[in-house]
Amino acid sequence: MKLEMICTGEEVLAGQIVDTNAAWLGNQLMEHGFEMQRRTTVGDRLADLTEVFKERSFQADIILVNGGLGPTVDDLSSQAMADAMGVQLQENQQWREVLSQWFATRNIALTKSNLKQTLLPEGAIMVDNPVGTACGFRVKLNRAWLFFTPGVPHEFMQMVEQQFIPFIKAQAGNVQRVEVSKLLTIGIGESELAERLEKCDWPQGLSLGYRSYTPYLELKLIARNVSEAEQAKAIEQAAALLGDGLVAHNCDTLAAAVHQLLVDDTASLAVAESLTGGDISSQLVAFPGSSHYLKQGVVSYCNAAKISLLKVSAQTIADHSEVSLACVAQMAAGVASINQGIATTDYALATSGVAGPGGGSKLRPVGTVVIAVKVKDQVFAQKISISPRRSRTYIRDLTAAVALDMLRRGIIGLAPIATYGYIKRVESKVYEMSALSNL
Amino acid sequence: MKLEMICTGEEVLAGQIVDTNAAWLGNQLMEHGFEMQRRTTVGDRLADLTEVFKERSFQADIILVNGGLGPTVDDLSSQAMADAMGVQLQENQQWREVLSQWFATRNIALTKSNLKQTLLPEGAIMVDNPVGTACGFRVKLNRAWLFFTPGVPHEFMQMVEQQFIPFIKAQAGNVQRVEVSKLLTIGIGESELAERLEKCDWPQGLSLGYRSYTPYLELKLIARNVSEAEQAKAIEQAAALLGDGLVAHNCDTLAAAVHQLLVDDTASLAVAESLTGGDISSQLVAFPGSSHYLKQGVVSYCNAAKISLLKVSAQTIADHSEVSLACVAQMAAGVASINQGIATTDYALATSGVAGPGGGSKLRPVGTVVIAVKVKDQVFAQKISISPRRSRTYIRDLTAAVALDMLRRGIIGLAPIATYGYIKRVESKVYEMSALSNL
Repeated sequence: MKLEMICTGEEVLAGQIVDTNAAWLGNQLMEHGFEMQRRTTVGDRLADLTEVFKERSFQADIILVNGGLGPTVDDLSSQAMADAMGVQLQENQQWREVLSQWFATRNIALTKSNLKQTLLPEGAIMVDNPVGTACGFRVKLNRAWLFFTPGVPHEFMQMVEQQFIPFIKAQAGNVQRVEVSKLLTIGIGESELAERLEKCDWPQGLSLGYRSYTPYLELKLIARNVSEAEQAKAIEQAAALLGDGLVAHNCDTLAAAVHQLLVDDTASLAVAESLTGGDISSQLVAFPGSSHYLKQGVVSYCNAAKISLLKVSAQTIADHSEVSLACVAQMAAGVASINQGIATTDYALATSGVAGPGGGSKLRPVGTVVIAVKVKDQVFAQKISISPRRSRTYIRDLTAAVALDMLRRGIIGLAPIATYGYIKRVESKVYEMSALSNL
Repeated sequence: MKLEMICTGEEVLAGQIVDTNAAWLGNQLMEHGFEMQRRTTVGDRLADLTEVFKERSFQADIILVNGGLGPTVDDLSSQAMADAMGVQLQENQQWREVLSQWFATRNIALTKSNLKQTLLPEGAIMVDNPVGTACGFRVKLNRAWLFFTPGVPHEFMQMVEQQFIPFIKAQAGNVQRVEVSKLLTIGIGESELAERLEKCDWPQGLSLGYRSYTPYLELKLIARNVSEAEQAKAIEQAAALLGDGLVAHNCDTLAAAVHQLLVDDTASLAVAESLTGGDISSQLVAFPGSSHYLKQGVVSYCNAAKISLLKVSAQTIADHSEVSLACVAQMAAGVASINQGIATTDYALATSGVAGPGGGSKLRPVGTVVIAVKVKDQVFAQKISISPRRSRTYIRDLTAAVALDMLRRGIIGLAPIATYGYIKRVESKVYEMSALSNL
């Protein structure tokens, strides 16, 4: 079965947005055991769209088309498909009713441009969109089924999961059972990881996939008709090779894993962020229920805030600078007990460092980062060194990742300070809470 | 002149990496007045590559091919192009010398797989790569020039800037001038915006584009051979239609605009975040130089933190709840003056609300949000109501956007409380700093 994708939209073609829908679809298909053979990206011009629909309909069996179903004049996918088929557009009664209700419950008038979204090529089969005003549809032309989906990512994703994947499974007939295990890692480069893994024996039917989303690298074990026992053995083998670099298993993000652990642990957390500037808190607050454990966060971006709010000793900063183990340990201890309205929190995180591009010195170049985690009565602090050639965003993101992993390890009873591949640890120290000067 | 791109590589097709080279090229071309007409993405299979080179050579004038020039067995672009032309691969003497020198100065032995990189299709014109071991090349087949570039981003970018753009300029002769203005909006739906804009007269050569990145909608005015005066008039016309919904002009994000204003104003800022949980701080800390104005941030996710850290009156919360104008105004005032190490900050932002999906009540349903901005001696607070059908992420993102815009307006001397299309304001109030109970 030849599977293709057609992406539409000037903004995708001209690079005003990066095509994340396409990357996401490629991943989804792989996880369900399908392979895409070609992707064609075109703009908004009617003639270009019509041409590409016609052309690919002779070559592929199933073509997912993304975008161009919106209400504006440059949304031309339906018209272009009708032209390619040599038919007219026709109002879809069912979708018109859905839209009428949608707007009525919101007390908004149904406009002419919204009505445009009810027009499908004659003979098209409507595909429901439960979360937006653009319905999808599918039509058969020449060799291919063309399956049209909206460009808005969450609408697109829902339609692919709930309707496109079942559709291609039905078309393909017998699909082999595919199971995917995802191992999220930090500190391991793709080529190094590939080299390590390729040396091993893997069971027949198991293939490896990688997906990089900075600063994480996700390793996928894709098992096609592999027994559960063999899968488990393969996961164990991969985990052994990854070592401490493995930070989450079958979890989309490390923050999601930490969130679940904190909820399960009925623990409390406080966060003091200098380098990460609120990013760690924000990653956790993204999950409903985070209010149960996240007691307070402080963004102490200037030293005055560290001293005044977190009770970091001015002497510590004078002696060791704000990018020191002592400072970040005091920040963690300080934020845990800052709130006189409640007890000291069970856990606390603190970050500080030089994110660049300016501000580096010989002693503390760009990429010098200190992170501390308070676990019960102790504070574990480490200084790491990230390449100064890395971007400010990368340095901040990797710092948040390491901090979250230190917390994760602390919660499940592992040593919070671990060794992650290429992340260079400069020094580390364990402080007793009772000995930290700011308490 | 028909311009196309062919991207190669399983990892791009299968979505293991997002194709940033393609987006970057699209942008570069637009800035030089060129438009890409189609992009085709294929994997690493020799037959697929040969087919696509042949096929597109009949359709386009210039095709940039990216990837597949590396030393490994799955780098097959040269071979596939030779097959498409019906010629042999031939060692390029000039590039062999470059490589020999490159390895000699680094004291590394030249391997067989590196020598593979000197093999080009017979008749190809070599294109220098000053920063890597893969040279580019170009060949003419049927209607098209195919221009081959390496996949490594910095090698690709250098080759495009130094060689590809001059090449297509020479091929094209006269190029039309394209200028793009970007207007960032909130609170206006794409269909509503389109309807408003389509009613207007626009100068010949000006086209409209939209780009949605939730909760923002960007309007682009794309001017081809439009005079500066006419462009200015068009921008003015669009701005008048957008009203207060227009939050930034030619700025990638609202945070970037606010950052620049704060830097220029040499002002100080403090942020108290409940609903947004650190997201506003983190958006600002993403920019180097934010340390100059961002004095402190507090994530006061629980009421104890609001009372204890921000000195919000417990009575206020008891009487009006934490999702009230009085509470958020006190949060803004409190965070501005929390840091006894420094003076009260010039500006402060505070957010609170019900992000959902749980936690809503009849009085304060999910999507009820309060935001306050302190501007000098006053605190401007408003309560808005976002549809409870929106996701937690959307509610948080829109809250951050409105908060940043209230601050932006305050800094440039506009009334901080504005009306944004579909964002429903429930109530608002202006407090004098001197009258807020927590000072």
